[in-house]
Amino acid sequence: MLGSLPSFARLVAELSKLPGIGGKTATRLAFHLLRRSQSEVEALAAALVEMKRNLSFCRRCFNISEGDYCHICNDTRRDESCVCVVQEPQDLIAIERSHGYRGRYHVLHGALSPLDGIGPEDLKIPQLLARLKDEEIVEVVLATSFTIEGEATALYLAQLIKGIGIKVTRPAHGIPLGSDLEYIDPATVQLALDSRREL
Amino acid sequence: MLGSLPSFARLVAELSKLPGIGGKTATRLAFHLLRRSQSEVEALAAALVEMKRNLSFCRRCFNISEGDYCHICNDTRRDESCVCVVQEPQDLIAIERSHGYRGRYHVLHGALSPLDGIGPEDLKIPQLLARLKDEEIVEVVLATSFTIEGEATALYLAQLIKGIGIKVTRPAHGIPLGSDLEYIDPATVQLALDSRREL
Repeated sequence: MLGSLPSFARLVAELSKLPGIGGKTATRLAFHLLRRSQSEVEALAAALVEMKRNLSFCRRCFNISEGDYCHICNDTRRDESCVCVVQEPQDLIAIERSHGYRGRYHVLHGALSPLDGIGPEDLKIPQLLARLKDEEIVEVVLATSFTIEGEATALYLAQLIKGIGIKVTRPAHGIPLGSDLEYIDPATVQLALDSRREL
Repeated sequence: MLGSLPSFARLVAELSKLPGIGGKTATRLAFHLLRRSQSEVEALAAALVEMKRNLSFCRRCFNISEGDYCHICNDTRRDESCVCVVQEPQDLIAIERSHGYRGRYHVLHGALSPLDGIGPEDLKIPQLLARLKDEEIVEVVLATSFTIEGEATALYLAQLIKGIGIKVTRPAHGIPLGSDLEYIDPATVQLALDSRREL
């Protein structure tokens, strides 16, 4: 059936390449787009091409950026002496959304994973070490994910950076706000109890 | 954060307009596309624009088509005396996939739904009645969905078409192949028993 509609079949094939979108969802999206106006579909196509044309990565911290340096590196009100290391630009966005951090960032673009053959050279770790040498950095916050890979990356970086004599911290473990103890995993409850605070 | 990345924010906004894609999925897709090569993203954009440019609806049956008439209407081997009425082009594809039908189609582009203000004039029903008058049609298979709206549409069309003196049929209800009776809803089991066949 789709063989007689090459441009429809091609759109379905292109949409199927997106993560989490299989053949059925791609077909549903293509039928949806077929019903939208020409200008709406062209707006989506133009947004795709322009995003790719305009966006690159910050030359200092590897956050996504529309210029050589990202808006955080360009912001003189940010604390230049503190660098928060994250795995992905998405993590940076999550931290910014919390309004809990006023320093700069360094985006690794992944985590160490020896089983997948991802070593320090495959991430932005050499660039981080160069920054620690060139810039006057007092504290590094290791905000890699709290997964096996993220923890391993944090441990690896902590040893390296402490060796240079720079303070290394990691966000605290604990019970998320508004959550019911009953539904929190026992390991998190244990960590929260270990680091209990006096009120 | 995204305010400082207008082209990224615009792509997320455009992707969020797609059905079943919310803000979080749109952001995830945009980050995925950011990592793809320029040519891959341009291929998707081109597929969108070309699909919209090339595709329209068949002038006879309102199936999607790259020309004035769809490949089924153009196929002289199809039985011109039988018309299968479906709600959406997707339903037509499902029937074609079954290889169980060799006639032509008529796509209504919806079902009657008085509560949503959708009457016969909002669907391709006038065009179906014109076909029944102009073409030499012997049988109409009403393959609208087996939902309340689909059944109501079938009932409405059955009365109209029987009035013209044309044979009207509807695909049989019953137990799907390979299914366990235990998991079939009681109404379907009842219908399957009512139309039991002698072996």
